[in-house]
Amino acid sequence: MSVVIPDVIDRDLCEQLDAGDPLGWARERFVLDNSLIYLDGNSLGALPRGTVARIAHLVEHEWGQGLVRSWTDAEWMRSPLRVGGKVAQLLHAGEDEVLVTDTTSVDLFKLITAALVARPRRRVVLSEEENFPTDLYVSQGVTALLDARAMRRVPRESLMRALDKDVAIVALTHVDYRTGAVHDMRALTDAAHRAGALVLWDLSHSAGAIPIDLNGARVDLAVGCGYKYLNGGPGAPAYLFVSTALQKELRNPIQGWLGHAEPFNFEIDYRPAAGIRSWMSGSPPVVAIAALEVAVDLALEAGAELAGEKARALTELFIRLVDARLARWNFDVASPRDAYARGAQVSLRHADGYPIVRALIDRGVIGDFRLPDLCRFGFAPLYTRYVDVWDAVDHIVEVMQDGAYRRGEYLHRAYIT
Amino acid sequence: MSVVIPDVIDRDLCEQLDAGDPLGWARERFVLDNSLIYLDGNSLGALPRGTVARIAHLVEHEWGQGLVRSWTDAEWMRSPLRVGGKVAQLLHAGEDEVLVTDTTSVDLFKLITAALVARPRRRVVLSEEENFPTDLYVSQGVTALLDARAMRRVPRESLMRALDKDVAIVALTHVDYRTGAVHDMRALTDAAHRAGALVLWDLSHSAGAIPIDLNGARVDLAVGCGYKYLNGGPGAPAYLFVSTALQKELRNPIQGWLGHAEPFNFEIDYRPAAGIRSWMSGSPPVVAIAALEVAVDLALEAGAELAGEKARALTELFIRLVDARLARWNFDVASPRDAYARGAQVSLRHADGYPIVRALIDRGVIGDFRLPDLCRFGFAPLYTRYVDVWDAVDHIVEVMQDGAYRRGEYLHRAYIT
Repeated sequence: MSVVIPDVIDRDLCEQLDAGDPLGWARERFVLDNSLIYLDGNSLGALPRGTVARIAHLVEHEWGQGLVRSWTDAEWMRSPLRVGGKVAQLLHAGEDEVLVTDTTSVDLFKLITAALVARPRRRVVLSEEENFPTDLYVSQGVTALLDARAMRRVPRESLMRALDKDVAIVALTHVDYRTGAVHDMRALTDAAHRAGALVLWDLSHSAGAIPIDLNGARVDLAVGCGYKYLNGGPGAPAYLFVSTALQKELRNPIQGWLGHAEPFNFEIDYRPAAGIRSWMSGSPPVVAIAALEVAVDLALEAGAELAGEKARALTELFIRLVDARLARWNFDVASPRDAYARGAQVSLRHADGYPIVRALIDRGVIGDFRLPDLCRFGFAPLYTRYVDVWDAVDHIVEVMQDGAYRRGEYLHRAYIT
Repeated sequence: MSVVIPDVIDRDLCEQLDAGDPLGWARERFVLDNSLIYLDGNSLGALPRGTVARIAHLVEHEWGQGLVRSWTDAEWMRSPLRVGGKVAQLLHAGEDEVLVTDTTSVDLFKLITAALVARPRRRVVLSEEENFPTDLYVSQGVTALLDARAMRRVPRESLMRALDKDVAIVALTHVDYRTGAVHDMRALTDAAHRAGALVLWDLSHSAGAIPIDLNGARVDLAVGCGYKYLNGGPGAPAYLFVSTALQKELRNPIQGWLGHAEPFNFEIDYRPAAGIRSWMSGSPPVVAIAALEVAVDLALEAGAELAGEKARALTELFIRLVDARLARWNFDVASPRDAYARGAQVSLRHADGYPIVRALIDRGVIGDFRLPDLCRFGFAPLYTRYVDVWDAVDHIVEVMQDGAYRRGEYLHRAYIT
């Protein structure tokens, strides 16, 4: 990590870090009220300023004036491929290996189903117990649907041992949503390949936060969501990655007209398109894809390496301040202390985690809570400042000192997304 | 039909019909340039004025300012159910029978798969050869995926005969995308039920154009797209309908976290939610759902009966003018001549259909073309005027008289969506 946090930290130091931040320009590209300390970009990224104008143009001109002609004139039809190509750059993948389509859940379904069908002699989807629930639920659903398939869930430390000749596909999330712990993508991919299995990585909590090298790690399949660190907006479409080597072998099980080789021939038999387009099913969500494109352009302008470096520095600063200033209130750092082993979030365990997070939100410090006791704080590298980290810890200190979080209004649990 | 078109038609008459139109107010609710005659609302509906402000508010305030808090504060999380409930009103379905989610293709996949799994002793999906391709492709995909299932495609007139005890589900499109011909939903549904099969109706070309009564016809399952007569915008999310009677029996095969009984418990085993929410998979496309809501509110304000009545009158007027003014150019009316047997579109067959449609588009008369020889004209009832019908026919006459459509620039076929 090239940003070194000195032993003695104060707010002035944080201001200096911001002044010297090579990504300092990027915050101004977002709509962010300075009265807010937004540490939930791991759940929903902030709004890029460029998105407001892009969506207005698309709605008022491309849709309102161009109407149906915009499918070709404004290149709506190509947008899932064009924006997929840009996401591919961010992931170190080939331009024709990534498609923007559907949701993460549906994309997981497509890829896991296709992998099982392509490997009929192997019957198992292997995952870890702590994987994000939708990844587990989708795999449960697919293996129940297909004949004689099964899901194998094991603790993280048993993954390598569980890789036997029955495993068709290993489906894992790259960065753990609870703790931010990063899997060793290359080592696990290599191990799976040695065992003859395919690998699928869910990049929802890593893309835009830490550098990813899909081709370098020889990854087979990947999915990811567009609305976290990619800042594509609420319910942004997801993306899927199918390595060139697998594109001829795997087949999209949700055969829709836009994955057809010649959609506008309206043939009665399905013939898949060549390349990544065969993974399309229905009509693309044009407005949402345009919003995602603005955000991905911004991520590319910043660069994944610099973003990863800043995420490591911000999370390091936070952990150092937690150690220095919150020790007496029994917060436990649940995230890895090695900066390279964590994503852009730090989770703190605390028995009163839920009311503490609620009290912080009332003060304008937006983090979130996950059962049973995790306070999650995301440090999205494009718009979080070092002073935000300092000020957030100030607020946590004040919340703990005045005990306001123990008030009744904070104790009733409603979900915090 | 309560609008009677007299024997002698001229432009004055059309103006009188517009002046007396009980839906005349609705056109002003859309962004539509009066220099354009937009007859492609069967492909992409026009932009409701209210949508511009609604999307801007959602993006700038709910996302930009509210950020992640808007999942609860702005009720983003409930929006697929809330808007689904409104679509349900339009379709005469129960409020908890319709959900806005995914695309038509993905929704078809979910429902057809679920029906086959629920009816293991029956192995066939029955459809007609002329069904919209994505409906055929999805069914082909599902039956290839599941063990020992098959698809049976027959000509429309053989559907009744093909209903035997092997049929698990009959999957049909209510209004034919080529000709606008309407199936007798009630009769076919009854016949399928007598044969012990479930029925799925694709309402993509009927909802918003003609009255629909899902509960009255005892329909089991339905899907539909949001971007045609519903005016939800390019790539608007689709909706699915599962009758209350079937909700306990059928199960969403794409098990995602938001279909879970308690999504924010992050349990490792899937437990489906009660009711229609179990058909959700991934995170809802919040911006697109908000756009659809504005449009569905407008459709409800107009009322499905009045909209259907106007669609019948507009298409009747068009056919009468085609008969009276285009006879010598060999146009063949491919749509049913009984107004109640067609949707809100009229298709004309012509050997030079493609260049004719291209030449009309250059004059600002936007229709579309479908292979091999179909010129499709949609008469979306909320914003099409009777004078538009008159003027469109005027343009067709002029195009045929001056022969401009035979110029080389119109002959090369690029798709018209």
